[in-house]
Amino acid sequence: MKPLSLVALAAAALAAAQPAAAQFQKPEDAVKYRQSAMFLQAQTFSRVAAMANGRVPFDAKVAADNIDLVAALNRMQFTAFVDGTDKTGNTRAKPEIWAQKDKWNAAVAKSQEDVAKLVAAGKTGNIDQIKAAAGAVGGSCKSCHDDFRKE
Amino acid sequence: MKPLSLVALAAAALAAAQPAAAQFQKPEDAVKYRQSAMFLQAQTFSRVAAMANGRVPFDAKVAADNIDLVAALNRMQFTAFVDGTDKTGNTRAKPEIWAQKDKWNAAVAKSQEDVAKLVAAGKTGNIDQIKAAAGAVGGSCKSCHDDFRKE
Repeated sequence: MKPLSLVALAAAALAAAQPAAAQFQKPEDAVKYRQSAMFLQAQTFSRVAAMANGRVPFDAKVAADNIDLVAALNRMQFTAFVDGTDKTGNTRAKPEIWAQKDKWNAAVAKSQEDVAKLVAAGKTGNIDQIKAAAGAVGGSCKSCHDDFRKE
Repeated sequence: MKPLSLVALAAAALAAAQPAAAQFQKPEDAVKYRQSAMFLQAQTFSRVAAMANGRVPFDAKVAADNIDLVAALNRMQFTAFVDGTDKTGNTRAKPEIWAQKDKWNAAVAKSQEDVAKLVAAGKTGNIDQIKAAAGAVGGSCKSCHDDFRKE
């Protein structure tokens, strides 16, 4: 079994295993948790995007490893939009996240589907497939931010 | 192959695969990256510690999954102490990190060893083994903070 496939399988295992709502001591912790996960997700995704865009040389292993981090962090962030944290601290989360649960859940599902496809593309080691899948992930990031994040 | 062992193997694969110095656009990104990873690490570790201390009921699967997140985040944080970020933004990193490289590298290695033992304990599903290993991890966190983090 190759390390890359182990990583991908593990990301799936982690994704399946995490509780829907992780426990936080304080509402502020939930906000900082999702913001930290989103920042790290943006950082790791940007490394993949830089290869997809040809700004840095393609390294299949580095790409796949960062994609798997993106997947784990994507899952982590969505455990932290717990009830009662819509007005906590410096959150930019819109109240629609909690007021329009069906729309929110669909956006979360779309994000996770697109990230799962990126993980699959990362396993192929094919830059064109990674590029296409990364574009879709970027699109679902933007769409969700447009709908659910304050300016 | 059980999900738990997949997760553990993947954590090891991730650990082996990440570059020693990840690339950051700005020094501030490196600081935020390590601080975000440390915060998430503390959060996920605290869930394990809460079970080890009997504050919440023991759930072997939740413990093992959070331990594997701790391991991935532990590895991530140590990619971000890049040269030139000792006085960046709101960092509490002491200059000794860069001035005493041998001592720092030994502290990093100790942290990673203790986390690897915690991952192994998580795989056993035995709360007593997890408790002992978590105590050691807490000790290496504190020791490193005492030596390398400003008050």
